[in-house]
Amino acid sequence: MSSGAEKFKGRDIISINDFGREDIEIVLTVADKMLPYALGRKTAEVMRGRVLSTVFFEPSTRTRLSFSTAMLRLGGSVLDVGDITRTSVKKGETLADTIRMIEAYSDIIVLRHSSEGAARFASKVSKKPVINAGDGTGQHPTQTLLDLYTIKKELGGIEGKTIALLGDLKYGRTVHSLAYALAKFNAKIILVSPPELQMPAEIVREIRESGGDVWETDDISSVIKVADVLYVTRIQKERFPDPEEYLKIAGSYKITTELLENAKKSLIIMHPLPRVDEIDVDVDETKHAVYFKQAFYGVPVRMALICLILGEVGWW
Amino acid sequence: MSSGAEKFKGRDIISINDFGREDIEIVLTVADKMLPYALGRKTAEVMRGRVLSTVFFEPSTRTRLSFSTAMLRLGGSVLDVGDITRTSVKKGETLADTIRMIEAYSDIIVLRHSSEGAARFASKVSKKPVINAGDGTGQHPTQTLLDLYTIKKELGGIEGKTIALLGDLKYGRTVHSLAYALAKFNAKIILVSPPELQMPAEIVREIRESGGDVWETDDISSVIKVADVLYVTRIQKERFPDPEEYLKIAGSYKITTELLENAKKSLIIMHPLPRVDEIDVDVDETKHAVYFKQAFYGVPVRMALICLILGEVGWW
Amino acid sequence: MSSGAEKFKGRDIISINDFGREDIEIVLTVADKMLPYALGRKTAEVMRGRVLSTVFFEPSTRTRLSFSTAMLRLGGSVLDVGDITRTSVKKGETLADTIRMIEAYSDIIVLRHSSEGAARFASKVSKKPVINAGDGTGQHPTQTLLDLYTIKKELGGIEGKTIALLGDLKYGRTVHSLAYALAKFNAKIILVSPPELQMPAEIVREIRESGGDVWETDDISSVIKVADVLYVTRIQKERFPDPEEYLKIAGSYKITTELLENAKKSLIIMHPLPRVDEIDVDVDETKHAVYFKQAFYGVPVRMALICLILGEVGWW
Repeated sequence: MSSGAEKFKGRDIISINDFGREDIEIVLTVADKMLPYALGRKTAEVMRGRVLSTVFFEPSTRTRLSFSTAMLRLGGSVLDVGDITRTSVKKGETLADTIRMIEAYSDIIVLRHSSEGAARFASKVSKKPVINAGDGTGQHPTQTLLDLYTIKKELGGIEGKTIALLGDLKYGRTVHSLAYALAKFNAKIILVSPPELQMPAEIVREIRESGGDVWETDDISSVIKVADVLYVTRIQKERFPDPEEYLKIAGSYKITTELLENAKKSLIIMHPLPRVDEIDVDVDETKHAVYFKQAFYGVPVRMALICLILGEVGWW
Repeated sequence: MSSGAEKFKGRDIISINDFGREDIEIVLTVADKMLPYALGRKTAEVMRGRVLSTVFFEPSTRTRLSFSTAMLRLGGSVLDVGDITRTSVKKGETLADTIRMIEAYSDIIVLRHSSEGAARFASKVSKKPVINAGDGTGQHPTQTLLDLYTIKKELGGIEGKTIALLGDLKYGRTVHSLAYALAKFNAKIILVSPPELQMPAEIVREIRESGGDVWETDDISSVIKVADVLYVTRIQKERFPDPEEYLKIAGSYKITTELLENAKKSLIIMHPLPRVDEIDVDVDETKHAVYFKQAFYGVPVRMALICLILGEVGWW
Repeated sequence: MSSGAEKFKGRDIISINDFGREDIEIVLTVADKMLPYALGRKTAEVMRGRVLSTVFFEPSTRTRLSFSTAMLRLGGSVLDVGDITRTSVKKGETLADTIRMIEAYSDIIVLRHSSEGAARFASKVSKKPVINAGDGTGQHPTQTLLDLYTIKKELGGIEGKTIALLGDLKYGRTVHSLAYALAKFNAKIILVSPPELQMPAEIVREIRESGGDVWETDDISSVIKVADVLYVTRIQKERFPDPEEYLKIAGSYKITTELLENAKKSLIIMHPLPRVDEIDVDVDETKHAVYFKQAFYGVPVRMALICLILGEVGWW
């Protein structure tokens, strides 16, 4: 292992913006080493006796389960704090005190919270490393890392690829973080959304200033022809005052096999899941569909982070 | 181990009707090997690094806990998906997508669902083996296997025994599956129920056609004298429009020490639990009571299934 | 290990009043051996294959998590029975039947219940050892043991120390148990509470009869000067019909850095947590604050109890 891995030891994972391109590449390289363990083909004991706590102030099955499996596959244990809002928090305990309790019982804390900034705050309180598993409209860095890993694995690399982000780009935490990260890899980013759900101008400006090549359009069919990656997100009904309007827009952003007829053969379709009906189930049968694989890739990526943070590197 | 065990590898466990008598006997034989591990007298490591997911769309403490303990006693890990209806499913995720997510995080999936056919459907979606832990009014095959194991352990065998099924035979999934399975062992099946709660004629006919020796009566006291097994089920208040009628019937089907005075010395009383007051607590002190042991026998039987399905045989 | 440890094997832990001083000292001595394992500096495998069940009829995050971590750090597994009131209990299952189910699936049962006496009752039903994790207004013996351990660790011993119990001494289960235990160590106990929340006269009398040196006052500032330990509890709003009265009293019992100016340098401040605002957050930064450490000390103390009860001694 290069000396780069050592700098992760004891580090908190709060925002993808804290990661340089080199950092990201270290994580993705270690994730590759984790693959056979994530698949259950090899057995690891490296986290034996260590405890990872999952502290979810909001439910998030996929994220919680994949962190849990990651720790279990490494031979460690998981402490699920459960529905924390029902207990100490209800009695009036502050987040700081809750975190101080949990750090006493674990080696690493995975936190999901409804308020932006909660993870950063928790990391300052805690002497044990904190991983942000989503803080409201803020960050969800491990989702971004698994998205990048998926692109790398499925397309052989990220550099120079054309990645279309599709759907709700206004409220989608996932696509914001991913766009920032893609800019570091000189990817071409195409934003495709209804006018009501465009990516905030400030984010677009920041990505461009950091060197990102960003294009905006609402013409899906022309994008399909050039894209290497189609990253689809859910358009939520609640965003539209008029249900008719919602149905019209959601319909025109739905991915179908017909729409894919002119796509590159190598096009991959991603989705952070759960999917409702943004992607027709017929698409699942095509080679383009990688969204379930993408969910699985969360396991090796999170295994890599756990190993790096707890300083267990080079054993693979 | 005979070559019979190998055919379980990778197999789904959906319905007891998928099992031939020989299959059942393999499971019960392996369950016997699991006993010292289930009791905690020996320690197994054979499932180290493997993950079993419990996916319960309906709560079922006993089934969930005994599957969990079975996996833990084998050295494996358990991922409890928890109250899945609160999260992805609430956002509109389909069962197929939920299963595809969970298979990415585990080696074997235990599913409880409220809809008949859900487990079969899940097994078709999933590349990982699925065990049906009850699907609505459908099947609950591991309950049947533990029921058969209990009879075998406590009476030395199933062949030719007289087994009385008592109480609600109309809605009781457990007794339907058990009756089908008992027919394969040439057991004599006596159905004892109030007229409102008789076993559906179609099921009785099917069991008879498959060679089962089935008798029906509503006279408990005469049955008590001849039965080797009294399998008691709960009569649910909700089944009766008239509360008076419910009380009268429930009362006349209650098992008491007085009722047992003319029973065979070797009679065993079983119950899938939880019991409300179908069996008087005084009966607990008699040698007839095996219902708590029966609950325990779920552990070795489920350990046997996990080992067979994941292809870990012969190590005991 | 002296022969004293053996007598814990298979024992239930129901009330601190069942413990003699020598028993307590054995637990605290073993807890010391557990410290490096509790901190994750050493790895233990001694509970491999064993299962501890957490059965919480009431939520209690801190207690549940620290028992769980204790078992995990020893290499064992934890079975969280979860929200038991939603399932079997809802169907009408008795506590006795629930316990008989859980003992079939585990080696040791940790029970939290809302009714005083529930743990004693469960221990009579169960063939597996039961640890009381709080039964209503009754006992919470492992809290008392961790409180004693904290005093011993932080002050070098308990004998002869001056311990002020502060706040709600009427309803606080924690302070009642602690007072009984402190009397066995010839500590000087000072009770400081508003008149509405004084320790019940009967308890004071019993402690005095057992040789305890108990003083009562409502003058915090004079107590601060002499105390070695300030054990602060939460004053609950619900205890006061008049919100104004509550605010006045809660305010006058709040621990601040100003109040501590005349304290002994070595004074330690304890709190069973969660804290609401009985202790100002500024106090957290002082050397007096040991309440988060106290929460951590629950881990080695519970590890010690698990090892003693399951007869795994001397391996450290």
